[in-house]
Amino acid sequence: MIAVLCGGVGAAKFLDGALRAFDGEEVVGIANVADDEVMHGLHISPDIDTILYTLSGQVNGETGWGLAGESWRVMERLESLGGQTWFRLGDLDLATHLYRSARLGQGANLTAVTAELAAKYGLRIRLLPVTNGELRTIVTIRDDTGDTRDVSFQEYFVKMRHQPRVEAVSYRAGREAAPTPEVLEALHSARAIVIAPSNPVLSIAPILAIGEIAETVSKRRDDVVAVTPIVQGRAIKGPADRVLDSLGFESSALGVARFYADYAGTFILDDRDAELAGQITALGMKVRRTDTVMHDISTKTALADFVRATIEEA
Amino acid sequence: MIAVLCGGVGAAKFLDGALRAFDGEEVVGIANVADDEVMHGLHISPDIDTILYTLSGQVNGETGWGLAGESWRVMERLESLGGQTWFRLGDLDLATHLYRSARLGQGANLTAVTAELAAKYGLRIRLLPVTNGELRTIVTIRDDTGDTRDVSFQEYFVKMRHQPRVEAVSYRAGREAAPTPEVLEALHSARAIVIAPSNPVLSIAPILAIGEIAETVSKRRDDVVAVTPIVQGRAIKGPADRVLDSLGFESSALGVARFYADYAGTFILDDRDAELAGQITALGMKVRRTDTVMHDISTKTALADFVRATIEEA
Repeated sequence: MIAVLCGGVGAAKFLDGALRAFDGEEVVGIANVADDEVMHGLHISPDIDTILYTLSGQVNGETGWGLAGESWRVMERLESLGGQTWFRLGDLDLATHLYRSARLGQGANLTAVTAELAAKYGLRIRLLPVTNGELRTIVTIRDDTGDTRDVSFQEYFVKMRHQPRVEAVSYRAGREAAPTPEVLEALHSARAIVIAPSNPVLSIAPILAIGEIAETVSKRRDDVVAVTPIVQGRAIKGPADRVLDSLGFESSALGVARFYADYAGTFILDDRDAELAGQITALGMKVRRTDTVMHDISTKTALADFVRATIEEA
Repeated sequence: MIAVLCGGVGAAKFLDGALRAFDGEEVVGIANVADDEVMHGLHISPDIDTILYTLSGQVNGETGWGLAGESWRVMERLESLGGQTWFRLGDLDLATHLYRSARLGQGANLTAVTAELAAKYGLRIRLLPVTNGELRTIVTIRDDTGDTRDVSFQEYFVKMRHQPRVEAVSYRAGREAAPTPEVLEALHSARAIVIAPSNPVLSIAPILAIGEIAETVSKRRDDVVAVTPIVQGRAIKGPADRVLDSLGFESSALGVARFYADYAGTFILDDRDAELAGQITALGMKVRRTDTVMHDISTKTALADFVRATIEEA
């Protein structure tokens, strides 16, 4: 069994390849929930949903999130009522949120509800939220007037289209934001732990903000393989480069490697960044190079195959 | 100004006529919220919504509730996910619930949110929920096995299609289920109070289950006009006849009049029930007769005109 620490789009693509590359072996996705948000009374888990939609083959291929064939009747109406529509929830997508919110309201925990949804979406991996408690990413931005203020990840990312300058990112873990027993068990018993090519600050760091997870992953550092989400200084998707930059990290694969140095013994670097290999090795990480950019199912599978080979060579 | 105690469909039709009959005079609808339900995390106020949709001319004319031109994309998808779909929420209707739930989540009270929705739907009456607190109708049914159990009004009415035998109806008023200041002010200052042709047990009784409302309405008994929802022993819409019957009330206009005798000085009886006039008069109520069945805008307006004339003759 391998465990994969996951954000949204990048992780979902990686898992899609891993399903094929690790054929016959169980893959457990451990998903970030720090970007979850309750909107209109509905519990939305964007990273989990992106994984559900991608692995069921129903994702909107153009955006990498949301559902193909989506319609917007509810949002259009809500707009006409003057409601908040900056977070666009498609009609089909809404059904997922209604399902989740109803089950949580009945007292089911997020792990159970995610398993139910994974079954309904026909997923062949096991998908676990990192915690059933409250874990939130808080983004401190500087606005036009020069003032700083705290916003949720979705406000920063969607409402503000990740334009404001990020002054700080912090994680609020509620008292009950313990890792679930399922997650701890997976991290202990996995043959290897993969850090998916997700945003280090916004997707992976909140998972590692849970003390017991950070401890468990760092103890298993020799079995941990991190895949870079940054190629030639740029995020493949999203604002990882700018966020890293504004936090004083170098927005490069080297910056990411520094971020992960305590957790991952092996770093998978893109061929285009070969010149950084030496500096990353100097951090005490083994470096393996390949093409990390996933365009389609064959490049997804090739990357996951490379990760499998890296794990096996250890 | 006149105040109207309201349930759903019958009240909405009456208000539609009252808008025309009481032209130039303010009409305040005081709506039952004891059938409200939180489903999938969304706060649903069926009686308020029926009034919003009817008075804005957007109601589904065939059912008397829900929206014309409704679609069911979210529900169909939720069904495919194995979610609870016995309470069918249309796509357009859902936008109302998202709006309400979002605003309540932001700390607005139901009175404020209802005013916002009424403005968006272009209502020309003032629509007030009877309370911002929790008020719920509990229906005790006897099921197939002979056991009794408590269900919410929507479970009884929608999920069980009002088929089970009703053993009892009770009202659970939370500690904060006080009438709003707006409602008390309306009941005190109205020229007359009309009890709309709604289900006495399921729509009007919960409103009167709030002590301060019952007290205020009974003190103003001489100014209160109740319109029968029962004609020739049958409810015009819904299960009022069976519910009255199973609670040991006579399912007739006389049964309704007995129910209202402490609150209403005047009872509007349908012409088809003329033979009951003597017995209702014996309850100490003035009886006025007319055609109470509302088919269309002209019969709605005629009934409201008759109510206005009745008020003015007092």
